[in-house]
Amino acid sequence: MSSTTPTSPFRRVTVVGCGLVGGSVALATAALPGVEEVVVSDVDAGTLARAAELGIGSRHEPDAAVAVDGADLVVLCTPVGVTGKLFLSLVPSLGPRTVVTDVGSVKSQVLVDVEGSGRRWHGSGPSRLSSGSARASDVLSRFIGGHPMAGSERTGVEAADGTLFQGATWILTPTAGADVRAFEELSAFLRALGARVLAVEPALHDRLVAIASHLPQVLASTLMDEAADAAARTGEAVLTVAAGGFRDATRVAGSDPDLWVGILTQNRDAVLEALDGFLSRLHTVRDQVDAGDWDGVRGLLTRARAARERLPSKERAGRLVDLVIPISDQPGVLAEVTTALGEAGVNIEDLAMRHATTSARGALLVAVDGDETADRALALLRGRGITAHLEPR
Amino acid sequence: MSSTTPTSPFRRVTVVGCGLVGGSVALATAALPGVEEVVVSDVDAGTLARAAELGIGSRHEPDAAVAVDGADLVVLCTPVGVTGKLFLSLVPSLGPRTVVTDVGSVKSQVLVDVEGSGRRWHGSGPSRLSSGSARASDVLSRFIGGHPMAGSERTGVEAADGTLFQGATWILTPTAGADVRAFEELSAFLRALGARVLAVEPALHDRLVAIASHLPQVLASTLMDEAADAAARTGEAVLTVAAGGFRDATRVAGSDPDLWVGILTQNRDAVLEALDGFLSRLHTVRDQVDAGDWDGVRGLLTRARAARERLPSKERAGRLVDLVIPISDQPGVLAEVTTALGEAGVNIEDLAMRHATTSARGALLVAVDGDETADRALALLRGRGITAHLEPR
Repeated sequence: MSSTTPTSPFRRVTVVGCGLVGGSVALATAALPGVEEVVVSDVDAGTLARAAELGIGSRHEPDAAVAVDGADLVVLCTPVGVTGKLFLSLVPSLGPRTVVTDVGSVKSQVLVDVEGSGRRWHGSGPSRLSSGSARASDVLSRFIGGHPMAGSERTGVEAADGTLFQGATWILTPTAGADVRAFEELSAFLRALGARVLAVEPALHDRLVAIASHLPQVLASTLMDEAADAAARTGEAVLTVAAGGFRDATRVAGSDPDLWVGILTQNRDAVLEALDGFLSRLHTVRDQVDAGDWDGVRGLLTRARAARERLPSKERAGRLVDLVIPISDQPGVLAEVTTALGEAGVNIEDLAMRHATTSARGALLVAVDGDETADRALALLRGRGITAHLEPR
Repeated sequence: MSSTTPTSPFRRVTVVGCGLVGGSVALATAALPGVEEVVVSDVDAGTLARAAELGIGSRHEPDAAVAVDGADLVVLCTPVGVTGKLFLSLVPSLGPRTVVTDVGSVKSQVLVDVEGSGRRWHGSGPSRLSSGSARASDVLSRFIGGHPMAGSERTGVEAADGTLFQGATWILTPTAGADVRAFEELSAFLRALGARVLAVEPALHDRLVAIASHLPQVLASTLMDEAADAAARTGEAVLTVAAGGFRDATRVAGSDPDLWVGILTQNRDAVLEALDGFLSRLHTVRDQVDAGDWDGVRGLLTRARAARERLPSKERAGRLVDLVIPISDQPGVLAEVTTALGEAGVNIEDLAMRHATTSARGALLVAVDGDETADRALALLRGRGITAHLEPR
């Protein structure tokens, strides 16, 4: 891989919804070689005007249906409760090769909304789009849900930052019907923005973020609320003595309440599961402290320290190794391969199709980071009955 | 106040226990004008040798009783369970004006240990030191407990950092018998290290840190343990997707388990109280999510955000105002005044005695930061029947 910024696979990119993430996507996209136009749309006229003032986007269009006309890529950066319905309303305006993604913090519900029914994810009910109309299923195959694991307790277009995604993990949730080329282009685009791509199934995504993001948000807000109450009861000193550890622990408590109510609403089941798991564990610690079971407490602290030290760093081994996976031209293989890797936490550093010239068969090349990861990925795929071999670059 | 580093009131300083905090105190002290010698002592010969290699301390002495001989200030930087008994063993070696402080994260128990009984803090039992021997009570009056609200998940002498206390709050817990001059010199010394002094009662200190420090530690470790368990159950992806919020929330989970078992052991009652308050609040949120009571959830998130924004910043108004408090030369006034201010979160930016030339009476001058804080402090003192007036510098 060269050290210069890769060229964007998309010339015309439309961002709908210009808050922190949308504005940051627009800024980062505009800096990519190969991008000719970044159209920004927002339902709020004031936000759109402010985006223009801040130099975010090369064209500003209040009507989303007009904004997506002619776009190679549409990035929906709207609140999670809005995205599905918005997508459906935009289908008639999308071009025959337009790739669509979103940035919502919860994925199952968006895909239910996008499919107009939820048949694929919940196994019941009629699907308005994926059956009956070839065009509709075609459009659906080019919608690939996404979620950048980057953000800030700051919100709104004023906080937009073109470097927000550098080094961040960007989750994609390709479904069984996902178009390989759409996935290939989209993941190349996200890498060009500086992100690392991880593909997982939508339902797994929601369980993961419930623990890694939504639970920490609830804990931070609850801790801050408890401390503020203690300050009111026993003197403001409790806030004055709050050192670095407390500030770290409560940083995300500064986040936008409405945004978070939307996220928690959409991911209620997984959040409840995470909260119940945490509560049970915290009750155990509480009882150990009460009983003076210090070996038990030490066990928790020791396990937690070891786990904290194992948190993946953003450092890369630096040497890419290709997994070569022969595939027939049947749908579903892409999602099966990429989400199997994602479940094990393996980033997709690059992805391409190698087409055989003499047959309908080809191979999927998935680059991963370093030999150790490659060996792990290979074992993983073979364990699922997927043939693969390694090919150093 | 001049912008140059203030002169240390202590020429010879001994630090006993050379871990992160002790090493940092030694480094910061050595940089102060007026300091002639920094003696470092540690029970571990390897640690002491490493301190010498790292240039921490100007003299290295394995025997603490020898190390404190001739010291103007002794800073005990030993684990919380050790400090009280260590102090008692050092009493015969302390000079007639030696000031002693410690840096323990829990204060009530250390003071119980220091007094050899706990009569002062728990109202029962005989006191070995504070009665019977004038010398003993004299020594006790010059022991002023302390706790710098600065630290790191890193531990040990290798992590020592002479700038650790810049801008940090350093809590002092003067008791009713505290020597005014010892407090005055010690607080001037801590300010010279770059810290801001806050004086509170020992029992209140322990309740404050239970909420602001010990509870966040338990939450961080529990969250990290829960996430690691989820990763083992559902795939390592949960750790790969952990973004900034999760890393912030679990940072202190990297701390030393033994250190924390010691802290939690000593502060069990206050920690249990904080855990129970938090658990009750988290159960409420959990039930609101379960019931779909989103107004309730929004209420929590909104209160927490407002409280987070009110967290005192390290910025100072910059203009010091003196509170002038006429005092008779009776013991207990210093602690009464300073801990009343501390309870309200008011830092003591400077402190001095103004002695009347013609009588035994004098005035305590306490400098606070800015007019608003001064007005608040004045109202607070008057509410407690303490006469005071303001005097701008």
